[in-house]
Amino acid sequence: MTKVVKHNSMRSTNTLALFECIRKYGPITKKEIQQHTGLSWGSISTIALELISKKLIVEIKSSETVVGRTPCLLDVSSTDNFIIGVDVNLSGLTAVLIDLKCRIIKKVREEMSVPNKSNILSKISHMISELIDSVDDRHKIKGIGLALPGDIDAQQGVSIFVPHFEDFSKVPIKKILEDEFGIEVTIEHDPNCMALTERRMGLAQNVDNFMFIRLSMGIGMSIIMGGKIYRGLNGSAGQFGHVTMNPDGPRCSCGNYGCLETYASCETILRKSREGMKMGRAPVLETLLSQGDRLTLATVAKAARGSDEFIMSIFDDAATYLGIAIANVVNIFNPELIVLGGDLMNYQDIFLSKMRCFVDFKCWKNAKHPIEVSTFGSEAAAIGAALLFTDKIYEEVVSDHSEKIGD
Amino acid sequence: MTKVVKHNSMRSTNTLALFECIRKYGPITKKEIQQHTGLSWGSISTIALELISKKLIVEIKSSETVVGRTPCLLDVSSTDNFIIGVDVNLSGLTAVLIDLKCRIIKKVREEMSVPNKSNILSKISHMISELIDSVDDRHKIKGIGLALPGDIDAQQGVSIFVPHFEDFSKVPIKKILEDEFGIEVTIEHDPNCMALTERRMGLAQNVDNFMFIRLSMGIGMSIIMGGKIYRGLNGSAGQFGHVTMNPDGPRCSCGNYGCLETYASCETILRKSREGMKMGRAPVLETLLSQGDRLTLATVAKAARGSDEFIMSIFDDAATYLGIAIANVVNIFNPELIVLGGDLMNYQDIFLSKMRCFVDFKCWKNAKHPIEVSTFGSEAAAIGAALLFTDKIYEEVVSDHSEKIGD
Repeated sequence: MTKVVKHNSMRSTNTLALFECIRKYGPITKKEIQQHTGLSWGSISTIALELISKKLIVEIKSSETVVGRTPCLLDVSSTDNFIIGVDVNLSGLTAVLIDLKCRIIKKVREEMSVPNKSNILSKISHMISELIDSVDDRHKIKGIGLALPGDIDAQQGVSIFVPHFEDFSKVPIKKILEDEFGIEVTIEHDPNCMALTERRMGLAQNVDNFMFIRLSMGIGMSIIMGGKIYRGLNGSAGQFGHVTMNPDGPRCSCGNYGCLETYASCETILRKSREGMKMGRAPVLETLLSQGDRLTLATVAKAARGSDEFIMSIFDDAATYLGIAIANVVNIFNPELIVLGGDLMNYQDIFLSKMRCFVDFKCWKNAKHPIEVSTFGSEAAAIGAALLFTDKIYEEVVSDHSEKIGD
Repeated sequence: MTKVVKHNSMRSTNTLALFECIRKYGPITKKEIQQHTGLSWGSISTIALELISKKLIVEIKSSETVVGRTPCLLDVSSTDNFIIGVDVNLSGLTAVLIDLKCRIIKKVREEMSVPNKSNILSKISHMISELIDSVDDRHKIKGIGLALPGDIDAQQGVSIFVPHFEDFSKVPIKKILEDEFGIEVTIEHDPNCMALTERRMGLAQNVDNFMFIRLSMGIGMSIIMGGKIYRGLNGSAGQFGHVTMNPDGPRCSCGNYGCLETYASCETILRKSREGMKMGRAPVLETLLSQGDRLTLATVAKAARGSDEFIMSIFDDAATYLGIAIANVVNIFNPELIVLGGDLMNYQDIFLSKMRCFVDFKCWKNAKHPIEVSTFGSEAAAIGAALLFTDKIYEEVVSDHSEKIGD
């Protein structure tokens, strides 16, 4: 049923509108804010004072003088609030320190040598310490966001299960890190973090309904509907890697058969390459390895680019099944945008055009289907994990306000 | 960007909240409205007066007396506003006359003998005339809603293309009927109408994100997100019948291969039954036809129930592919509810349990997936087409108001 609107929730909404306007366009004059938001001069002044007292925005003098006066500019405070974002992935760990203007202040990276619980937790802890030490006052760090693969309980802050991670079932990671650092921690599924990055500062800034597909060791999807993360009935939305492409297909890590991941994940590409080499069918790859290259996705891609036909056929299969699976998503949802990211996109020259052909061929003839590739590379999820926390700060701006007025 | 809230849009929202409350719980006292909506006594009185003057609600005397007073009850006016809904489907045409309380006042049905333009338009026209004649004053009919299959341009009121309908390309059906009857006409894709029926008065009354799947001659889907019809980037969302189940599968009417419709539509079941009979493999069906039954879905179902193994295998295939396709939807969207409807559901005893098994088996292990069967039968789309118009009336209540205040 339609909810009635009361004056205090109106005020909260206006506070958020003003803050978002300053974040997006700052430094900005009150007059310009008025033009963007339609808020009255009085409201802008009152709300701005409140946000300044919370050290969320600052007032700065303009260098220009207008009719003898120097107009004040409002901007998001970039020296008082920092957030840490960490991406925990089988292919490596990345952590970033960002300010409220979403600029990366510092970045650290660690290899994922042995993916077991103690090793992962100690690397996360080490990276966070390094970022905290780079800030003059640790109280300026307002939160730590964590991007995690697999099944998570975002509300409880627990990592339920991650394929390929050892002893990593039901890890209360939020509590562990909060106890260690005394800073609030939020966890989120990694494709959701990457989608947030696109939504806030990437390809999806003006797109309300889109999907982000992470093509890495596994295949994950984030669905943004009406500008918000869509989680589904019990948080299982986005298991795109486990749509059935062929009920008679290969066994998948999830227990099913013929899932998309069994055709198009980085793990599948590596496994098939290894199998092909054992059968003596991948001569270029074999030569590369004999010259000292390790069996990584980069090496396999080099073999494909070096015209190893068997390896090329593996990428072709991945392109075909990905194309059909994405066409099916288009047929059902006709999303405004699909953004592709993840490790596999480093090798898009090998498979992307074939994949696009299959999407074109297999989707409903009238359905538009814009597909773009993320430009954030390996930092996308870490940035997004931090952004998750900026959203929390914004929400607090509003809820503080509602509480104060007694909504 | 968050929109600022102004007083006049607040008033419109409150008007809608009050109207919805009366529609849902009426006859209802002002005190009860206050408990449901949280609106002030003054606001309720002012808005109620306005809605009474528009003949949308009425004030009636309660039969109970409380402390010497007879409290007034407010209810939606059931004698001043009627709407016609028409469902145009290859399996037949259904038209209903409903009041603002969404009760069916009268219903008419026509067989779809020859599905060509002149025949379809004349049947629609005949049905609408009959319903108009049943009302004492034709001005009380506030609109005509039309549920159409195929591709439509809802905004322009044009039927773009309907498979199996002859000369039915680019038919400006809204204009044709408005010229004939002088009553506003709205058209909508038929699964969307059926979903609206479930949302307003069926299985999805408290469900914001769900899908309705119509299994008839074709297979269509309606997606409701945040309580509203989700249409996708260019209106192509819901082409569920054309997801690729097998890239090497049979040719589909859409031009592609191995679409879900080539395995699970009523048309496919009929075609395969005919082919099986020609090959002498469907003895029970052959006997039924020799006894005078026509080759309809009802007869084919009778053969399956009579243990015609070949016909049973056709239903089994349909169940398998439907199960996998629905599991894929669950894996991606984890919707709060999936409602199944359409002609095929008349024979659910033959295939539904097998289909459910495949959904259970093929979907992500943690994903809840409630699937229910619509109880509205053949009237669902016609009722929904009319409901579409009640929503328009509600919107007008609000937009009238905004205009008057000058938002």
